[in-house]
Amino acid sequence: MVNYPNGKFSNRSKIINYSRRGMSLEEDLNLTNKYYLEVNRAVIYKKPTPVRIVDVDYKSRSTAKITEAYFQSPSTTDYNGIYRGLYLDFEAKETSSKTSLVLAMIHPHQLEHMKKILQHQGIVFLIVRFSYHDETFLVFAKDLFEFISETKRKSIPYKWFKDKGILIPYNYQIKVDYLSVIDTYVFGGKI
Amino acid sequence: MVNYPNGKFSNRSKIINYSRRGMSLEEDLNLTNKYYLEVNRAVIYKKPTPVRIVDVDYKSRSTAKITEAYFQSPSTTDYNGIYRGLYLDFEAKETSSKTSLVLAMIHPHQLEHMKKILQHQGIVFLIVRFSYHDETFLVFAKDLFEFISETKRKSIPYKWFKDKGILIPYNYQIKVDYLSVIDTYVFGGKI
Repeated sequence: MVNYPNGKFSNRSKIINYSRRGMSLEEDLNLTNKYYLEVNRAVIYKKPTPVRIVDVDYKSRSTAKITEAYFQSPSTTDYNGIYRGLYLDFEAKETSSKTSLVLAMIHPHQLEHMKKILQHQGIVFLIVRFSYHDETFLVFAKDLFEFISETKRKSIPYKWFKDKGILIPYNYQIKVDYLSVIDTYVFGGKI
Repeated sequence: MVNYPNGKFSNRSKIINYSRRGMSLEEDLNLTNKYYLEVNRAVIYKKPTPVRIVDVDYKSRSTAKITEAYFQSPSTTDYNGIYRGLYLDFEAKETSSKTSLVLAMIHPHQLEHMKKILQHQGIVFLIVRFSYHDETFLVFAKDLFEFISETKRKSIPYKWFKDKGILIPYNYQIKVDYLSVIDTYVFGGKI
């Protein structure tokens, strides 16, 4: 907040934050990854949505039209790639809840996958946006698994994210600058 | 070939090879990656086919049916994952030609992607199966780019694969044991 000479506080930054609420975490991550790619900082992509194709209409040779297909549950996380020579892998979730993230939002296959990546020494984490609070956290997989093993809760409290998560900085060019967190915590030796 | 006491050669190995011709390279790679995953040797997946979804029928709540969608050209290679702590990335192509692989089979976006992975120090390569010869080769990206930069040819001759490629061993359990090639050439310091 800017402290104006007349002693009043401007709510401007708050307004700017609200204005970007229209963007989903997925859109923000796509822009972020595109930016990272353009400046050659990292090569990270979202995997396509897995779809089981049942029927295709080949009438028009140039554009085959899929006429029957079904969504499949993912075997892996949605995002992976390479950063500073290392394998990087994450899942992203957005919730409108004020108080918690429902664990069922993360598919068991995805948790299994994250565990395997951890074993193979990849950088693996979760990005969670609490849209109500307009905050996006990075949570390292090892912390996530610690939480899961220590509790029988079916959701992770917002407070836990405040404690164990790392708030991901936002800026106009890099919507969700999660690599700055990786720089500090993984390459900076904080983890 | 087995040298029988009567001096005749058995064609048995040839027959066995022929019998697996029904399997596509993609199927063989899926089985291979599944095996690597099961024995916890590596975590490597094929990315889902990219599809642009236009219309979905939500009539039945449990199974949303996609009724209009189109294939998209891929931005990246089809396969990636982690092996021995390193990022690994490849594209797989199968040809029925006796003499060459048409370069147009590899999408320009995929070549761009491979170049970027090379810059970021990932392990990146091409797996090419010549189904006529029943041979599957691994070609490292740097050799592929050397070929492309040195020639204006629109296809890569089979002979070049014999020279620059590494024949990938086949066995019953591991259909396309490409990680054994990575072990020898990348970790064994042959490259």
